[in-house]
Amino acid sequence: MHRTLSVASSPVRDLLALTSRPEVISFAGGLPAPELFDLDGVRAAYDLALRDRSVLQYAPTEGNPDLRALVSARLTDSGLPTSDVLITTGSQQALTLVATALLGPDAVVAVEEPTYLAALQCFQMTGARIVPVASDSDGLVPASLRSVVAAEKPDLLYLVPTFANPTGRTLSAPCRAEIAEIAAANSLWVVEDDPYGELRYRGSAVPPLASISDRTIYLGSFSKVGAPGMRLGWLRAPADLLRTLVIVKQAADLHTSTVDQAAAAAYLTHNDLDAHVARLRTEYGARRDAMIAALPATVPPGTTWSDPDGGMFVWLRLPGDADSAVLLKEALLHDVAFVPGASFFATTPDHATFRMSFTTNTVEEIGEGMARLAKVLR
Amino acid sequence: MHRTLSVASSPVRDLLALTSRPEVISFAGGLPAPELFDLDGVRAAYDLALRDRSVLQYAPTEGNPDLRALVSARLTDSGLPTSDVLITTGSQQALTLVATALLGPDAVVAVEEPTYLAALQCFQMTGARIVPVASDSDGLVPASLRSVVAAEKPDLLYLVPTFANPTGRTLSAPCRAEIAEIAAANSLWVVEDDPYGELRYRGSAVPPLASISDRTIYLGSFSKVGAPGMRLGWLRAPADLLRTLVIVKQAADLHTSTVDQAAAAAYLTHNDLDAHVARLRTEYGARRDAMIAALPATVPPGTTWSDPDGGMFVWLRLPGDADSAVLLKEALLHDVAFVPGASFFATTPDHATFRMSFTTNTVEEIGEGMARLAKVLR
Repeated sequence: MHRTLSVASSPVRDLLALTSRPEVISFAGGLPAPELFDLDGVRAAYDLALRDRSVLQYAPTEGNPDLRALVSARLTDSGLPTSDVLITTGSQQALTLVATALLGPDAVVAVEEPTYLAALQCFQMTGARIVPVASDSDGLVPASLRSVVAAEKPDLLYLVPTFANPTGRTLSAPCRAEIAEIAAANSLWVVEDDPYGELRYRGSAVPPLASISDRTIYLGSFSKVGAPGMRLGWLRAPADLLRTLVIVKQAADLHTSTVDQAAAAAYLTHNDLDAHVARLRTEYGARRDAMIAALPATVPPGTTWSDPDGGMFVWLRLPGDADSAVLLKEALLHDVAFVPGASFFATTPDHATFRMSFTTNTVEEIGEGMARLAKVLR
Repeated sequence: MHRTLSVASSPVRDLLALTSRPEVISFAGGLPAPELFDLDGVRAAYDLALRDRSVLQYAPTEGNPDLRALVSARLTDSGLPTSDVLITTGSQQALTLVATALLGPDAVVAVEEPTYLAALQCFQMTGARIVPVASDSDGLVPASLRSVVAAEKPDLLYLVPTFANPTGRTLSAPCRAEIAEIAAANSLWVVEDDPYGELRYRGSAVPPLASISDRTIYLGSFSKVGAPGMRLGWLRAPADLLRTLVIVKQAADLHTSTVDQAAAAAYLTHNDLDAHVARLRTEYGARRDAMIAALPATVPPGTTWSDPDGGMFVWLRLPGDADSAVLLKEALLHDVAFVPGASFFATTPDHATFRMSFTTNTVEEIGEGMARLAKVLR
């Protein structure tokens, strides 16, 4: 059948182009703060990796054995016992691999709503039908999942249970247990996307869904704790499924960059990533606090927002019939940006919502950006 | 619909595992010679790229602008006028992007037979039906393509017109013109996979199909002239299709490693890739000659083989009802390996065929490997 795929480009990535003027203070992209990258440590790791000629050669699809062992040990130490992972070209690739392996032509995918829009794109591209599961201030609502499973029989549930994108919300341990039970009872695959879990600024860790459910495919990434430019993620799944995913990855790109993988293994061996993450937590926590503190004077009365314990995002809803996409145009005239919320919805968008990232800008820039935003919103 | 994808792993990649014992002289994998990698030049390029903090950040899906300009200029200089390319995570990814963008649920893909098996895998994974087009010692036979197009109405033709994998054959300019004419008359997309084109050891270049057909998607790669570990390829296509492929890539992995791309741009800026390729040509040409010269004393009378002008592979056919998969087991007992030909066929395999790569081993190793192989084959 002749076709040319029709899928829209990501509004966030298109927006990033608009906000790249240096005078814009952008709260739009989910970008790590570049000044906090450990550039010297990373450069030294590449230099070390590139002492070995074999890093320029083809490599196993599964990934660099040292890196797999290091990542598995790190996950195990954090409370998720892990014997092996598949290294992916960022965790975005992991999503596509899972969709290719598990979603047939008439597949149904349940997603918390709102959700990460590049996941929506990825599932839409396979032709899957997307069904939304309600979320509240504690994240996905298990009772809603139960009705969706009964009515729609989805093949897969996708969620970001910890510091969600776009809401910043975290699913409680009892809700996780209930989701694990629903997954087991209905042979439902659960994709637990966890790029932000280590970026906790207060409270204590909630065990990952994968630690209580063997129906869970757990996705991790260096992008938020290391450097997104290296495009390194990993995927933990039951052994049978992992083998299938390796074959799917073989067709997707043979393997992830041998150089980047070896550099990451060298970095993890010779540097203290935990100390680096601790530094990120301190800095990002201060930025989170600065943004939340500025909100009452920035947004109109009646606006609500999430109060995230970690991650990168605050999710807001303006009162009445506000349209955040219209307001964004005005905001750009004032050299400040955010992401309108509509594109994070699988079905009926709430146009009064929007997402703000607090990690990319310094506390000072956040202050200035919020002052600009107040002129638009109030 | 519940499913778990069932696609076989690549026999070549599985075989590479068997042949990784250091005592084995392997003619199996299509691996560049590691001792010819410009390790120092590449390490210096990474070090230079990593002076700039922005190489650790997210980046545009299209690819690093400098690298796109450098690759486009290089293609233009080589006789293929190119205004832009999409940078891909190796050209294997380009195949998957093209399949996702162009192949609907009942798609039909025509391939020269035999052909590159990871391309077969990739098209099979989309659920496409594969139809073979006959090839002879000059590559794909246009008359066969004409009948296949009339009977099967394929959406896409995949071929490696220059120094093909697995045969080493090169399609003549008149045959290319005929294929371009068939593609234009039938709205057929043509994927011209050209990883080996620069590795010519004799004769003169044949213009790429893409230079005479605007129905052509041209795939190039650093893997054979630079380093496969960097996983860098590029894709040249008509502007409309290129835009669609960018969106598909966004879902596939957001973008290719910012670090690897910046290092490649630095390498191309500060090194003479043409001089490096010239060195590869000299070395690989000598290896080709050594393998071809040894063949008469290695294979049984009645064996036929291709006589490639470039690339990495010789394709052989044993006389009678020989089964090269059975002979491989015996060969491994003598610490030498090749790839049985069956898996390069989309439909009916010819079990008497096999592929030998002449690039990975030195002339001395080729001599020793061929002597071991003679014990098995003669």
